[in-house]
Amino acid sequence: MILLRNIQIDGSARDILIEKDLISKIAPAGSSRNWDLAGDIEIMDCSGKVAIPGFVNMHTHTGMSLMRGIGEDMVFHDWLKKIWSIEDKFDADFVYWSAKIACLEMIRTGTTTFNDQYWFFPSAHKAAVEMGVRHSLGYDMMDRGDLEEAEREKDQCLRWYELARDIWQKGSIYQVAFHAVYSVSEGLIRWISDFARERNLNLHIHLCETRKEVEDCKAAHGGLTPVEYLDELGVLGPNLLAAHTLWLSEHDIELLAARGVHCIHNINSNAKLASGYMFKYEEMRDAGINICLGTDGCASSNNLDLLEAMKTAALFQKAWRSDPKALPLPELLDMATINGAKALKINAGKLTEGALADISIVDTDNTFFLSPGSFLANLVYSAHSDCIDSVICGGKFVMRHREIEGEREIIEQARKEIKRML
Amino acid sequence: MILLRNIQIDGSARDILIEKDLISKIAPAGSSRNWDLAGDIEIMDCSGKVAIPGFVNMHTHTGMSLMRGIGEDMVFHDWLKKIWSIEDKFDADFVYWSAKIACLEMIRTGTTTFNDQYWFFPSAHKAAVEMGVRHSLGYDMMDRGDLEEAEREKDQCLRWYELARDIWQKGSIYQVAFHAVYSVSEGLIRWISDFARERNLNLHIHLCETRKEVEDCKAAHGGLTPVEYLDELGVLGPNLLAAHTLWLSEHDIELLAARGVHCIHNINSNAKLASGYMFKYEEMRDAGINICLGTDGCASSNNLDLLEAMKTAALFQKAWRSDPKALPLPELLDMATINGAKALKINAGKLTEGALADISIVDTDNTFFLSPGSFLANLVYSAHSDCIDSVICGGKFVMRHREIEGEREIIEQARKEIKRML
Repeated sequence: MILLRNIQIDGSARDILIEKDLISKIAPAGSSRNWDLAGDIEIMDCSGKVAIPGFVNMHTHTGMSLMRGIGEDMVFHDWLKKIWSIEDKFDADFVYWSAKIACLEMIRTGTTTFNDQYWFFPSAHKAAVEMGVRHSLGYDMMDRGDLEEAEREKDQCLRWYELARDIWQKGSIYQVAFHAVYSVSEGLIRWISDFARERNLNLHIHLCETRKEVEDCKAAHGGLTPVEYLDELGVLGPNLLAAHTLWLSEHDIELLAARGVHCIHNINSNAKLASGYMFKYEEMRDAGINICLGTDGCASSNNLDLLEAMKTAALFQKAWRSDPKALPLPELLDMATINGAKALKINAGKLTEGALADISIVDTDNTFFLSPGSFLANLVYSAHSDCIDSVICGGKFVMRHREIEGEREIIEQARKEIKRML
Repeated sequence: MILLRNIQIDGSARDILIEKDLISKIAPAGSSRNWDLAGDIEIMDCSGKVAIPGFVNMHTHTGMSLMRGIGEDMVFHDWLKKIWSIEDKFDADFVYWSAKIACLEMIRTGTTTFNDQYWFFPSAHKAAVEMGVRHSLGYDMMDRGDLEEAEREKDQCLRWYELARDIWQKGSIYQVAFHAVYSVSEGLIRWISDFARERNLNLHIHLCETRKEVEDCKAAHGGLTPVEYLDELGVLGPNLLAAHTLWLSEHDIELLAARGVHCIHNINSNAKLASGYMFKYEEMRDAGINICLGTDGCASSNNLDLLEAMKTAALFQKAWRSDPKALPLPELLDMATINGAKALKINAGKLTEGALADISIVDTDNTFFLSPGSFLANLVYSAHSDCIDSVICGGKFVMRHREIEGEREIIEQARKEIKRML
């Protein structure tokens, strides 16, 4: 059990009791003096601190965390070729240490759940379980139009799935993934879509990330946009987690909304790769689409800090729409928390009794929170993620007062891995 | 004297000797063993750390630091009215504590010089001298078209200038300022411009911040843009520090370049207030304009973190130009360091023998620098300002290993000031 004493939630002082992996009680500060708390309990005095839901980073490639800074300032499709040429050398060990570093960075920046798309997913799974971060992982398929490769991918997907059924533990979410409409053949897209639907799995993809992707798709598929093309193939549905969705027509937005697709905004990556920035947040929200937030992998964005992504998303929305009211703070917080939880179908991303105990504890005793403005404005616009003092995931502390167990060893080991790979 | 042992500069390990306020020696690491170092010396082992020039934040309003979060998500000219209504109540004490907080925040984020525009400047001067941060400050004039107010402003400007001649100390730079073409009458603009030129002072203004400013100016002044209007008044020159310069015509850029005006980009503020974002960096650079970087005041941006501003500036340039190569990292670093120093005519913003000893020491022992990419890419795109371990300004440590003398007391006192003001 964990008892957080005298912590602020939405402007009120509260005591929070955590039992097993759930928030079991939230009551006015001081109430816990009357609670019958027998057994093993860790009590943290949180005076002057604020509880927020742990962030849900809905689009990552944790296996790429040791590749950041490779291919700076390159055009998207050139960058992708460079990344692919390096990734061919990767192995399970490299992905494991890369994912360990990713988890370290996410914990330190307040993220308690991530939705990953990569290869060697058992490595990422092992890393995330060890680090105590909630995760949605699966095999990422890509055949680049090679039909023999497509068959190998199917075999691999089946093998991983069988393996996953054995090793999957509480808190792990299994999904499948394919890269994008331009890197996966139609047959394989149909196959993985059926595979996901039959097994009730989420399907995680890149969609409408660049203008070129849309133009190439129209040229290759009789004028259909990537969204329309996937709809023709029967892929769109509430189990689809679509990253980027940056270059959308009105009809695309209607289709995504009608099919219940979850969309994931990754502004840092899109801006840095110059893929685009006019994410149609308002139109998509008004159409009823569930919009989540992600960082993308470190190779493009170049970190896993969702709080930074929140500020960048707000700045870009306000700027390109010439509207300082665009993307209001409460909606931005939802994008970074509960909307992702909804997409992953977990009872997290909110601070209520019965929800998963995924909580970040924010230290406000610094210059950034010294203002009469709202806590949320200070958190997003003024502060940095180093205001995250402690993090609880699944009812366990994964960071206490900026200390994470084993951090130094992980960083040392990752340094060795980079040397080995180069 | 300060000796920094085994510190990285541009990829090479160095020993740096600081005597009085200057960098007196830079030599390969280990050389200092043979130096004759008698007297009072502080030695810091900087193994695993990197030296960069202290940042020069070229546009701040430090007196506003305790006002952040007021007027979130408002249109620029409504926001300005709200800010002005609150500022009317300010006094010297409030500005002093506000500036103390600003200095704390700048030191923690690696800034060693700031260029300020505000009222009660002796308060900001006292704060900056106490905190050890290099500063350029002066009286900010504004009459809002009231001719009697203009006369009072002139008197005030003269009084402050006489005072400044007495209290100005080494490291302090005196300048004058006026708010903007829409808030200051033509007569007062001419007067302050002459005043500055006769005394060899810099003149710090807001220029072409919003589209409305340009349109209103054209309507009021026979079709002249704010830049053309100021040129008619004889204001443009190498002593002019022009903040924002966001809405510029080709002719404006030619004029600014021909007159040697220094321009200051403040992307966080511009984007958040939805004033605009298409800063014509390439055109201005190619025209030969010295382009600097600023954060603007905390009431708009909402912090004084120039490293964050560097990343935001790069993302916006790449995004709106659809060019991932836009605003290369070395130029971005120059904008944040040496270009500001040039505008202020100080020998800083670079790590060379004989330059002012304004140095930030970056700790790279964390996940953000774990990559084969360049140090600068990791610093700007991946890391946050909490990687700034120690800061030296004018040959004195203003932060050692994240500790700043008196920090807790300053934050406590600032909290009391906010309560008093509200």
